Amino acid sequence: MPIPVEGGVTAPQGFQAAGVHCGIKKAAPLGAPHANLDLALIATEGPVSAAAVFTTNRAVAAPVVVSREHLARSGGRATVIVTNSGCANACTGAAGMQVARDMAAAAAEAVGCAREHVLVASTGVIGVQLDLTKVRAGVGAAARLLSVDGSAAAARAIMTTDPFPKSCAVTVEGPSGAITVGGMAKGSGMIEPRMATMLGYLTTDVRIEPVVLGGALRRIVDETFNAITVDGECSTNDCVFALASGRSGVEVTRDDDPTLLDALRSVAGHLAREIVRGGEGATKLVTVHVTGAASHGDAWLAVRTIANSPLVKTAIHGGDPNWGRLIAAAGRSGAAFELERASVSIGQVPLFVQGVPHDERADQAADALTAKEILVAVDLGTGGRHDATMWTCDFSAEYVRINAEYRT
Amino acid sequence: MPIPVEGGVTAPQGFQAAGVHCGIKKAAPLGAPHANLDLALIATEGPVSAAAVFTTNRAVAAPVVVSREHLARSGGRATVIVTNSGCANACTGAAGMQVARDMAAAAAEAVGCAREHVLVASTGVIGVQLDLTKVRAGVGAAARLLSVDGSAAAARAIMTTDPFPKSCAVTVEGPSGAITVGGMAKGSGMIEPRMATMLGYLTTDVRIEPVVLGGALRRIVDETFNAITVDGECSTNDCVFALASGRSGVEVTRDDDPTLLDALRSVAGHLAREIVRGGEGATKLVTVHVTGAASHGDAWLAVRTIANSPLVKTAIHGGDPNWGRLIAAAGRSGAAFELERASVSIGQVPLFVQGVPHDERADQAADALTAKEILVAVDLGTGGRHDATMWTCDFSAEYVRINAEYRT
Repeated sequence: MPIPVEGGVTAPQGFQAAGVHCGIKKAAPLGAPHANLDLALIATEGPVSAAAVFTTNRAVAAPVVVSREHLARSGGRATVIVTNSGCANACTGAAGMQVARDMAAAAAEAVGCAREHVLVASTGVIGVQLDLTKVRAGVGAAARLLSVDGSAAAARAIMTTDPFPKSCAVTVEGPSGAITVGGMAKGSGMIEPRMATMLGYLTTDVRIEPVVLGGALRRIVDETFNAITVDGECSTNDCVFALASGRSGVEVTRDDDPTLLDALRSVAGHLAREIVRGGEGATKLVTVHVTGAASHGDAWLAVRTIANSPLVKTAIHGGDPNWGRLIAAAGRSGAAFELERASVSIGQVPLFVQGVPHDERADQAADALTAKEILVAVDLGTGGRHDATMWTCDFSAEYVRINAEYRT
Repeated sequence: MPIPVEGGVTAPQGFQAAGVHCGIKKAAPLGAPHANLDLALIATEGPVSAAAVFTTNRAVAAPVVVSREHLARSGGRATVIVTNSGCANACTGAAGMQVARDMAAAAAEAVGCAREHVLVASTGVIGVQLDLTKVRAGVGAAARLLSVDGSAAAARAIMTTDPFPKSCAVTVEGPSGAITVGGMAKGSGMIEPRMATMLGYLTTDVRIEPVVLGGALRRIVDETFNAITVDGECSTNDCVFALASGRSGVEVTRDDDPTLLDALRSVAGHLAREIVRGGEGATKLVTVHVTGAASHGDAWLAVRTIANSPLVKTAIHGGDPNWGRLIAAAGRSGAAFELERASVSIGQVPLFVQGVPHDERADQAADALTAKEILVAVDLGTGGRHDATMWTCDFSAEYVRINAEYRT
């Protein structure tokens, strides 16, 4: 059972962090020194086990290319992760690739490690060159500020226009002792024109080989960061990083270790849901649960189609218990679907049961839709035993306003 | 070369049509007798060659089930198509299925044909029973009004909340003589809560076997009705019907007959684009053209992802020449994609050419985005020769308003 603890990414032993403002974003307003932080470091005392999951978008940004190369060259070891916000360094050609390499070199020099032990991430405007002079100044300043108290500033420094920082940590007591996992993330959609989206960072104090850490990370990513959607878009810069310091002395040798998976899933799941809660224009956090699927793939096809359906998301925004839209989305998803045995509930109110409408409960469901957190459930009626869960948000006119505004 | 002619679905010889108000929608306002028509007939003098393409949604509405059965039983012959708007007769169980059968029986009796020669369609609210008494009265009234001048009323009677009726016809001179194709369609998204979407009707005077007509219909549907999107949703009631009276005397024996395909494509393409132009909240008609794809499938994957991307559609709504969003959508589509050789143009202005940004042309592209019809083009950079075109609309706050309003 994971127990929440303070400290974010520095909660596990062996990690320091910092966040600074170096001018990639415009200067902070007077009296708000923590606004507009735009460069973050997470550092360990030496190379530790590292793993990452990168965007599946084929238009990959320069920092993603560099981080992939470094992990391959180091055999999955890293000492520091450097991240800037305000500029995605994506679609920036050979010049942008050089900036990403120079950014890694600056971080290596600042903390005193090999270049290949640096992971790089950028988030912000696509198609604009990143200012290396600012990055170098920021890296130097952040390295001097590194501390176990730096996680809150780091979590702010990776934000683009996220409405709030996302950071948490848990401790789990396992058979070999207690382990701690911390994490932070950013993401809200592509909230400003040309903004790229999601970054996640997980730290832990277990002793683990990189390949095992990578396996564990991939196991929990599908049901956490990959199980959320704001608008169905996938950015050029999405990354999730994991670092393991080994400082708890607890050794993990299998990627299905239940204690580690429990802790990783708890932190990543919380951060993922926080991204949705802070989604562009979002006013509600919606859990979509699909049951009765004929296969694992069908369950995910159906849940993903429903969670991304603009008609479902606008109905929830409008407080309309419109079960017909859930049926229509499930029906078009490509998953096996039996209308005569299908069921839908909205806000725990069954509105369509085994093919029969129960509109007499519509008012009760409309009441349930006034809550900030809503469960919608669809049974595909095939009699299959597979299920899947995704988190999404409602779809508001504010989303359109945010994304239609010209380069604000 | 197709020549536009008057008359819609009754332009080809051998067709009559009618549209009436029978009370499924609320009564027409005073002084607007053609508002709120809700029942349409298209009739021929006897069973003629018929073909149809139905929704791929697995939650199929009762009229779709009945029309499929009738076409199978009759070997592809039909005398009349009866359509009501205002109620989709979808998710209505065994009772709804009986209403669809009784609706067909009423039409058969009214025009004096076998039941299996009736095709049935319904569009409107999902999950509500269709009032058979009103339908019977409407069928009787419409049968008495059938005429070659009835196509405009029929095109109005199939509308739900479409902003305008969609109807057209063309004549094409072929090697064996002139043929005519007429058509009408409805669709705007699911514009009112629980509204189902697209219906299309094509009529022609060629002499053709049902199986050949069906083959020709399937050939042109992919590049017309299946090449449009308003919101990526697929309804429980979508159908496209084709009837061929044979009255031109021109015989068509192959489903790739260029004269017939030319005429069908012209009418279906026009109607399809009109659906997008009248899409929910739409202010612009956007043609998305993808080139440089490694395969036919890749071209369609990429064009479909771009045409449904909320970030692309909101950028166009906001007049933002945001090529990064087009790259990001193409990159996540699953199609092979080479960023270094990819290109994007917006409103015919090249903004990203072979991997290099040309933001100095952004103002020119922003000017082009003020037009009502806009072309956006993406080359995937693989050097492949496959391409695909889809039509979509911009994405406005009005779409959210329309779909979030509670059962208006």
